[in-house]
Amino acid sequence: MTDSQAHEQADGHSDFVEDLASLTPTVLASYSRIEDERLRELVTSAISHLHAFVREVGLTNQEWRQALDFVNALGRGAGPGSNRAMALSDLLGVSTLVCLLEDTAVTGGAHHTASSVLGPVWRQGAPFVESGGSLLRSETPGEPLLFTGRVLDPSGNPLPDVTVHVWQATPDGLYENQDEEQEEMNLRARFTTGADGTFQFRSVLPGGYPIPTVEPLGTMLRLAKRPAWRPAHIHFMLHREGLRTLVTQIFHPLDPHLHQDAAFGATKDLMMGGFEEHTGPAPEPGIEGTWYTAEETFVMVPGESVVPAAPIE
Amino acid sequence: MTDSQAHEQADGHSDFVEDLASLTPTVLASYSRIEDERLRELVTSAISHLHAFVREVGLTNQEWRQALDFVNALGRGAGPGSNRAMALSDLLGVSTLVCLLEDTAVTGGAHHTASSVLGPVWRQGAPFVESGGSLLRSETPGEPLLFTGRVLDPSGNPLPDVTVHVWQATPDGLYENQDEEQEEMNLRARFTTGADGTFQFRSVLPGGYPIPTVEPLGTMLRLAKRPAWRPAHIHFMLHREGLRTLVTQIFHPLDPHLHQDAAFGATKDLMMGGFEEHTGPAPEPGIEGTWYTAEETFVMVPGESVVPAAPIE
Repeated sequence: MTDSQAHEQADGHSDFVEDLASLTPTVLASYSRIEDERLRELVTSAISHLHAFVREVGLTNQEWRQALDFVNALGRGAGPGSNRAMALSDLLGVSTLVCLLEDTAVTGGAHHTASSVLGPVWRQGAPFVESGGSLLRSETPGEPLLFTGRVLDPSGNPLPDVTVHVWQATPDGLYENQDEEQEEMNLRARFTTGADGTFQFRSVLPGGYPIPTVEPLGTMLRLAKRPAWRPAHIHFMLHREGLRTLVTQIFHPLDPHLHQDAAFGATKDLMMGGFEEHTGPAPEPGIEGTWYTAEETFVMVPGESVVPAAPIE
Repeated sequence: MTDSQAHEQADGHSDFVEDLASLTPTVLASYSRIEDERLRELVTSAISHLHAFVREVGLTNQEWRQALDFVNALGRGAGPGSNRAMALSDLLGVSTLVCLLEDTAVTGGAHHTASSVLGPVWRQGAPFVESGGSLLRSETPGEPLLFTGRVLDPSGNPLPDVTVHVWQATPDGLYENQDEEQEEMNLRARFTTGADGTFQFRSVLPGGYPIPTVEPLGTMLRLAKRPAWRPAHIHFMLHREGLRTLVTQIFHPLDPHLHQDAAFGATKDLMMGGFEEHTGPAPEPGIEGTWYTAEETFVMVPGESVVPAAPIE
């Protein structure tokens, strides 16, 4: 058998494998006909790194079959309410990496608020609440929090009419969709920034929580001896036409588990600004004992206003 | 907020993300507690290459969400009879890469037959057939093929008592499990090598075929303008206690589509040896017109005898 006996494809491409050394270039060439330049770049880089990984570790057939089983287990049951692939991405730090890279790329160095992972529990359709109103729709024990947000452009000018989605867990670490005790949409709301770019709300301090892990992710964390912990945080998504949608989280800076974020979401830039503990008279009725204030400034940059598909219904 | 306010984990580990540059080392450190050395090596290399890919292309959130959807689509419906993750591995050349790497690693340079991908259609329980018997269990039009196999150790000594699984498609490119016209287990059999290490069977020349593609693989091939073609081949799996199981394929060396193998399985080492076309009297009754002979020598090396789980039932 000589090569001349085997006809190449009409355009000169060949998927015939001469040897181990030439296999990767052969595979890369076979995907070089993708017309979209960006897609071709992504596929080429992904194949290169996948092959480099396999070669570097000398992957065996048995190990590869286990890896394929892992991939199959990820997608099994995928649908509204279950996105194990996204959860894996969080647990491998890739979600945060993508956020930080995109921040760098699209802001062109402009001052902006760091983005963070969307997470698996954002819901569409949370009620619009007047600025100053409460996130609570059912009685929710916890330490009162008065939050003030300001939304600015990179030059420091206030940005009015920005839609701000806010969602958080209870002090026990439960979102309303995970907890029968809570009313529908408890601790979820949408606000609209006023002429001065601000919005305010009353809530309770959120709690940290162990993330619910399904297989194969639970086994992965256990083998790595990684705690399945997320430190306390509040989620925000801000959008307005003409501005790059900002998905971010704000962390309780005194949370004892800040160094144990299974999702690598806790970054230096995302600590609640102006976080203060208070005792004594509060500016609002019904607050006794210890209460907290927190302020945060969100800086949005011009760009595409994309509202992603909600991970759960 | 200073770092001293955030407590590190008891063993000094921290998942807190200082900045984009330190993210990858932070993630790698968080998986460094895996006890099994080989698993730690695999996970570390996989994370490194995954992050390197994301950084190299500057992956955006939108692109990453599409990639996660792709992963979810792969696993949806995974089970006996459906393994899209394995099919993707074939289409990216990774299955062949793993085979060739394992060949190099475990044979220690000993002369051996190259392994090839198992593919998605091997079934357990094919009937044992006496050497010289037929693969056909129902009338199967096609050009007759008389196949002679020899199984040797690296020194050239015959290996008796080797179990040889053989499976192939019809000239129309259909396996029996895809075709109502064929009897159960048509073109599938098991043989046992004799004292001289040989086995023989009568069959028909297999045909090449377009692989059945389900989403998201069909779209991937279409975008890459890759034909979904597999050139004609016969599958073999040889095993005996004390010998490394040999999974391989033999290709028809005159197949016009040798350069279009979507699975990158056609390699130089896997062309049918001693392939010859004949006319005139045949050594067996019932053969008229053109018929073929093919010979192949399989060289097995000492090692682990693993029979994998069957991809289909």
